[in-house]
Amino acid sequence: MKDLQEKVISTSQAFQGNILNVRIDQVELPDGNISEREVVEHPGGVTIIPVTPEKKIMMVRQYRIATEEVLLELPAGKVDGEETPEEAARRELKEETGYYGGDFQHLFDFYTTPGYSSEILHLYLAEKIHQGERKPEKGEFLTNEKIAVERIPDLIFSGQIKDSKTIVGLLALKELIEQSGEQGRH
Amino acid sequence: MKDLQEKVISTSQAFQGNILNVRIDQVELPDGNISEREVVEHPGGVTIIPVTPEKKIMMVRQYRIATEEVLLELPAGKVDGEETPEEAARRELKEETGYYGGDFQHLFDFYTTPGYSSEILHLYLAEKIHQGERKPEKGEFLTNEKIAVERIPDLIFSGQIKDSKTIVGLLALKELIEQSGEQGRH
Repeated sequence: MKDLQEKVISTSQAFQGNILNVRIDQVELPDGNISEREVVEHPGGVTIIPVTPEKKIMMVRQYRIATEEVLLELPAGKVDGEETPEEAARRELKEETGYYGGDFQHLFDFYTTPGYSSEILHLYLAEKIHQGERKPEKGEFLTNEKIAVERIPDLIFSGQIKDSKTIVGLLALKELIEQSGEQGRH
Repeated sequence: MKDLQEKVISTSQAFQGNILNVRIDQVELPDGNISEREVVEHPGGVTIIPVTPEKKIMMVRQYRIATEEVLLELPAGKVDGEETPEEAARRELKEETGYYGGDFQHLFDFYTTPGYSSEILHLYLAEKIHQGERKPEKGEFLTNEKIAVERIPDLIFSGQIKDSKTIVGLLALKELIEQSGEQGRH
């Protein structure tokens, strides 16, 4: 794949914010030409698929200023300082839903938008979790809603769930459930 | 959901680029407190799931400077000027894979990362497409690879496919195939 690679010649910081930075890379393309790339630098985060004891998925509704909409999403958040991704996942689940403890299984990692952002999300399945009291971060306003696994396809194809990390997490869960069903039948 | 909404008090442009802008919104939170939000403004785009006559999925490998990796992705791109999303999807499919014509079905739209970006992607299923010559845009270097539908779960869970729009598209296709199989059985 070496022949697809772009070589950074110089880089300049264009914006420094609290949650993201923007830099402009001058790159040498595989054909020797020079081009510019705008890159959003983001610290990355976690997304959790919380399966409650009654086999529902615990979701979060929150307003997103970037899309000017209240969205139904899986719990998620940034990895703080020295935290491991699993520690961040456990903390965010508690803050946003009140659920804690249980078994956390790392499924896979994915880039939300590699065309212009470095953001990577670590996806966790959380089972055998216990109900507790929610503690949202300062400045974070959300409500919770449990959904049944059977509703996943319709919620996505009807446009009621529009957030990519949430679609990735819910369809991955559905895939895991189908695989375990197939193993049971064989 | 009115009680979750944030009200924009003032906004300032922090970065203006070729593919994205950044603005900072000062917002009034539901509890009356004031906070700041960093928002990436992105024009949005399309993602295509191209199913070839031999029932494989036509993919694209390209280097992504933001993640410093060659990634295996579904064909995708921005909507240009006066194009409709379907016109953009047909153009990008031709440019990146050479395939053209066929039946395009709009599946749903999704936000790649609503926590900080306005980017929305329109997802299309492309069937009965015809093979032609590839015409990548200037400065775009990529190779193509066909994958079998059966490989989708393993490619995602093993981390060989890491791009969120691609995971969304491939798992949505798998869901559609399963649904049509179930209809056939009933």
